[in-house]
Amino acid sequence: MATILRSAASAFFEYDTPRITHIRSKKVGLINRFLQLIIIGYIIGYVIVYQKGYQDTSKVQSAVTTKLKGIAFSNYSDISSIGERTWDVADYVIPPQESNSFFVMTNVVPTLMQTQSTCPEDPTVDGIQCENDEYCESLKGASFLKGNGPITGKCVNSDFPNFNGTKVCQIRGWCPVENDDMLSNLTEPVLQDSRNFTVFIKNNIVFPKFGVARRNLPDNEDDQYLSKCQYDSHSSRDKFCPIFRLETILSDAGIQFENISAEGGVMQIVIDWTCNLDYSVDNCVPSYTFQRLDRGDLKISRGFNFRYADQFGVFLDDGSYKLYRNLYKAYGIRFLITVQGTAGKFSIVPLLLNIGSGLALLGVSTIICDIVVLYILKGRHFFREKKYLDVKASDAFQILDEEEDETPSKNRAVQRKVTVSS
Amino acid sequence: MATILRSAASAFFEYDTPRITHIRSKKVGLINRFLQLIIIGYIIGYVIVYQKGYQDTSKVQSAVTTKLKGIAFSNYSDISSIGERTWDVADYVIPPQESNSFFVMTNVVPTLMQTQSTCPEDPTVDGIQCENDEYCESLKGASFLKGNGPITGKCVNSDFPNFNGTKVCQIRGWCPVENDDMLSNLTEPVLQDSRNFTVFIKNNIVFPKFGVARRNLPDNEDDQYLSKCQYDSHSSRDKFCPIFRLETILSDAGIQFENISAEGGVMQIVIDWTCNLDYSVDNCVPSYTFQRLDRGDLKISRGFNFRYADQFGVFLDDGSYKLYRNLYKAYGIRFLITVQGTAGKFSIVPLLLNIGSGLALLGVSTIICDIVVLYILKGRHFFREKKYLDVKASDAFQILDEEEDETPSKNRAVQRKVTVSS
Amino acid sequence: MATILRSAASAFFEYDTPRITHIRSKKVGLINRFLQLIIIGYIIGYVIVYQKGYQDTSKVQSAVTTKLKGIAFSNYSDISSIGERTWDVADYVIPPQESNSFFVMTNVVPTLMQTQSTCPEDPTVDGIQCENDEYCESLKGASFLKGNGPITGKCVNSDFPNFNGTKVCQIRGWCPVENDDMLSNLTEPVLQDSRNFTVFIKNNIVFPKFGVARRNLPDNEDDQYLSKCQYDSHSSRDKFCPIFRLETILSDAGIQFENISAEGGVMQIVIDWTCNLDYSVDNCVPSYTFQRLDRGDLKISRGFNFRYADQFGVFLDDGSYKLYRNLYKAYGIRFLITVQGTAGKFSIVPLLLNIGSGLALLGVSTIICDIVVLYILKGRHFFREKKYLDVKASDAFQILDEEEDETPSKNRAVQRKVTVSS
Repeated sequence: MATILRSAASAFFEYDTPRITHIRSKKVGLINRFLQLIIIGYIIGYVIVYQKGYQDTSKVQSAVTTKLKGIAFSNYSDISSIGERTWDVADYVIPPQESNSFFVMTNVVPTLMQTQSTCPEDPTVDGIQCENDEYCESLKGASFLKGNGPITGKCVNSDFPNFNGTKVCQIRGWCPVENDDMLSNLTEPVLQDSRNFTVFIKNNIVFPKFGVARRNLPDNEDDQYLSKCQYDSHSSRDKFCPIFRLETILSDAGIQFENISAEGGVMQIVIDWTCNLDYSVDNCVPSYTFQRLDRGDLKISRGFNFRYADQFGVFLDDGSYKLYRNLYKAYGIRFLITVQGTAGKFSIVPLLLNIGSGLALLGVSTIICDIVVLYILKGRHFFREKKYLDVKASDAFQILDEEEDETPSKNRAVQRKVTVSS
Repeated sequence: MATILRSAASAFFEYDTPRITHIRSKKVGLINRFLQLIIIGYIIGYVIVYQKGYQDTSKVQSAVTTKLKGIAFSNYSDISSIGERTWDVADYVIPPQESNSFFVMTNVVPTLMQTQSTCPEDPTVDGIQCENDEYCESLKGASFLKGNGPITGKCVNSDFPNFNGTKVCQIRGWCPVENDDMLSNLTEPVLQDSRNFTVFIKNNIVFPKFGVARRNLPDNEDDQYLSKCQYDSHSSRDKFCPIFRLETILSDAGIQFENISAEGGVMQIVIDWTCNLDYSVDNCVPSYTFQRLDRGDLKISRGFNFRYADQFGVFLDDGSYKLYRNLYKAYGIRFLITVQGTAGKFSIVPLLLNIGSGLALLGVSTIICDIVVLYILKGRHFFREKKYLDVKASDAFQILDEEEDETPSKNRAVQRKVTVSS
Repeated sequence: MATILRSAASAFFEYDTPRITHIRSKKVGLINRFLQLIIIGYIIGYVIVYQKGYQDTSKVQSAVTTKLKGIAFSNYSDISSIGERTWDVADYVIPPQESNSFFVMTNVVPTLMQTQSTCPEDPTVDGIQCENDEYCESLKGASFLKGNGPITGKCVNSDFPNFNGTKVCQIRGWCPVENDDMLSNLTEPVLQDSRNFTVFIKNNIVFPKFGVARRNLPDNEDDQYLSKCQYDSHSSRDKFCPIFRLETILSDAGIQFENISAEGGVMQIVIDWTCNLDYSVDNCVPSYTFQRLDRGDLKISRGFNFRYADQFGVFLDDGSYKLYRNLYKAYGIRFLITVQGTAGKFSIVPLLLNIGSGLALLGVSTIICDIVVLYILKGRHFFREKKYLDVKASDAFQILDEEEDETPSKNRAVQRKVTVSS
């Protein structure tokens, strides 16, 4: 027992360190130091300083709400479905609120007071034009994918002004059908004034690992300023203002309002919170960039639009009611808000990990120099002799054999076997 | 000064390499080479080739917009709230546009022309059935969580056809109340034709690190094809068509339209962009998979439905007005679109990092062989002698002691102390 | 040929192991063992056990749908636009369904039966108050950013009860304009009962790497319980109930219903799925936490509200129609649902990687001890002698020179050159 304890204690006070061949050579030393310099430079310069390898990082978590403001006035007294009217936020933001995105209508084709009945189909639908009832009768009950309802079987005059005299099959559905052609009479989009709308983007973020919460309202500004300011990327003060004029967003992305307002499009607003929390948290401020996400060179997928409708019932004189709806084909700009960013803060753990992997990488310089010394240099045989101690397993067993003469004979067979197999 | 410089210069031209015991043994050599083979095979075969360890990677960023097309016709002339009517995209997509998702109504319970007044409560609400006013009077002002309004205190005849003769408490609220039972009279969902609706999914993606932008429209197809094609996973051409028939989505996920259309459900459309940018960017194309997200075996959480209403005012003869609304309980399929994917491109940094960690891993084979050689092999004492150079700290201090005789005596006490404590 | 094969075979049966100086020293041994203990403790205790370094991990993928229930009754017979009425789910959830979020209206300013015409502007708009037509004439056609339409040029009496006698410019737009002041007459929010609303959150998740799908419905509960239960964080059973009373969510986040209901706000519901799949999958259950995301100390960004409208047409006696709308300024609570979590499962690969980097880290203890032994200890020269074998490159070439006498003379010049440059 005492022996075991003593040998355990002696094992405890031991320490192993590799034996080193220390070679003094200008050529190899130079290679060695040069490689070490590159590796240390990479670790310190790139990994630790440039990549901030001494920092622990945390991804941003975010909540965004938006509020649009602005009034548009349309003066199309010749187009009865639009007329002279004012469009406000409840008219042009659809749906009224969303997460991380909002839609602003810039152009619209209203089709008012539709009701379920029968009427001539849109003459631009493929195969809908007819000369007599026979053709339509053969399609009775069918509905074209791009049509507005099932065909009743009658051939009637189109009610589209541009297709005066054309005959089309009659359909059953929401009548009258939408006439998309209306837009071609317009010189500019209906909500031309939408370029001046502003959006107030409220962005609360948190870096959960560091318990840091921020928002995109400048800390040092008063309410007076915040209620009047407008974002301007070129102003050192206004570039933190969270109120954006739509045309500013577009022009910062290199888009002309005229090129997107008629047919719509998809824009991205990127809010970047890249924060170095080793400095004051006051320096943790957002930066905004803007870009267009859709590219419109194919005919079938140009722009951004969708249809929505308000339904309502109208009482008839006999006390019964009829369903009506106002249909809108809304063209406009869909804004997606992406909040990204990472915060870094000094932490001993990533620093040690990077230093550790740097030390491991230093071994690479030894490997390369070894190749030079042992395989390339003229004196390679000499260096190899100094670095390597050649041991043959058979020598070990010769010694064993000699020692074995004193060991009991029952072990001898086993040991012979080992000698042979090794 | 010159001495310091010279010794610094000499230190600069040095190079350290570990001294190695080179053991020639079939047994250990075999183990060593076998382990090295496994490690090198793992590094090259798995990490570098299979896992593409030579590539830098970038996650996909994406924007999705959708456009539904299709017409449904319902022919329920016996159910007055539905009747014979056509349902179009403005009727069945609610809300009209969303980010990364869309909802298609497949079944509906309309309750038209509701207005704020008093009426009999839904008789299926627990505890609402009564025999006389006394019971209802005791509940006056209370509202059941699943009820439609506060109880007025009167006991009245139910107006539900299936509960003819049943008496229920009267409530104040939107009247008449919704009668969910209507659906049980239907043999198939109201928007039975919704199986043929198509959705055009426009997906613009970008891999920010590589500056590669793509969209899910085949580059080499003309507008003619794109306006007519339909997705088909079995066709080498149509599997890139971004227009999906709803029934195709369901059947690819192993779902029968009949099993989801009546009560609704939640489907996921996964668009996967896994791109190897070492090849032509033309090969960076999406693949689509579909699955059902909700599983409906518990009664309380089956399917997917929600209620929405269109409100409107109706002028009365005396010039005042009254609020009305049409309430819809919409059953349908909620489609969530998930865009995922990673692009890889050759980069020297991850390749070096993987080779580096591979070299470090090679050390494991030495450790395992050392265990075999030093603890298991018969000749372990011999090998240990060759590997280890035994040094006792006391020897160091004996030498020191001898050398010390020449050092000034004031240092001697300190050095003795060291000798004792080490 | 046979020679090459034989030497290749002999190289195959070799094995290199570093030669070690084994130092027996209490002081250094102690430092060494202490450092090793810290490193091994860090690896095993922190990395492997605490951080579960033996597990492969997978991030959660999730789909959330919500369903609100509850009835509110408002009894403001003195405010005609609200009156005595019942609010149900189709009234207070706007839009009716969203992904990962929902909005509950708690307070509202309705402006009913607006139509496009001319009327006095809101007197609280800056610069709108006038004394005579001249002032308004100078602003004709302009619209204030916070106004409701372009100015017609007339100066008229305000129709706001609180601004009796004030004159303001007339505008063209949706008339009458919204009177936000109405709220100041209320002692409590219109939908005071919204505190009792409940939301059923259906959350289906999947850990794709492990093929594990779960949902937030307790497996072992019957439909009876699930249709009646309410979430309670203090109950071991009810803390898994997926039905949440709104006031419970608020109070768990430390928010009084009274402090958020009048002006609205943004709340976050975090569903955390942190699962150890080494145990039964039945233990993989969600936990819920709640917090408020917006902080309201600046005037301009307090609370959460937005405007929406229901539009409808009204037929006039002459058969033509006029557009009307009901405008609502909706105050309420926006709930964002964040699903997060990671599942871990035993896997040999991360375990080996962590053990591997742990072994590499052990080298640090040798480096530190080497510093102590070679630079600090009194016997450093002795130890250095034992660890290092000093080799001068010039010795190598002296030997070469001697050997060279037997090599052909044409190589001699080249070898001399090498000797000089190394």
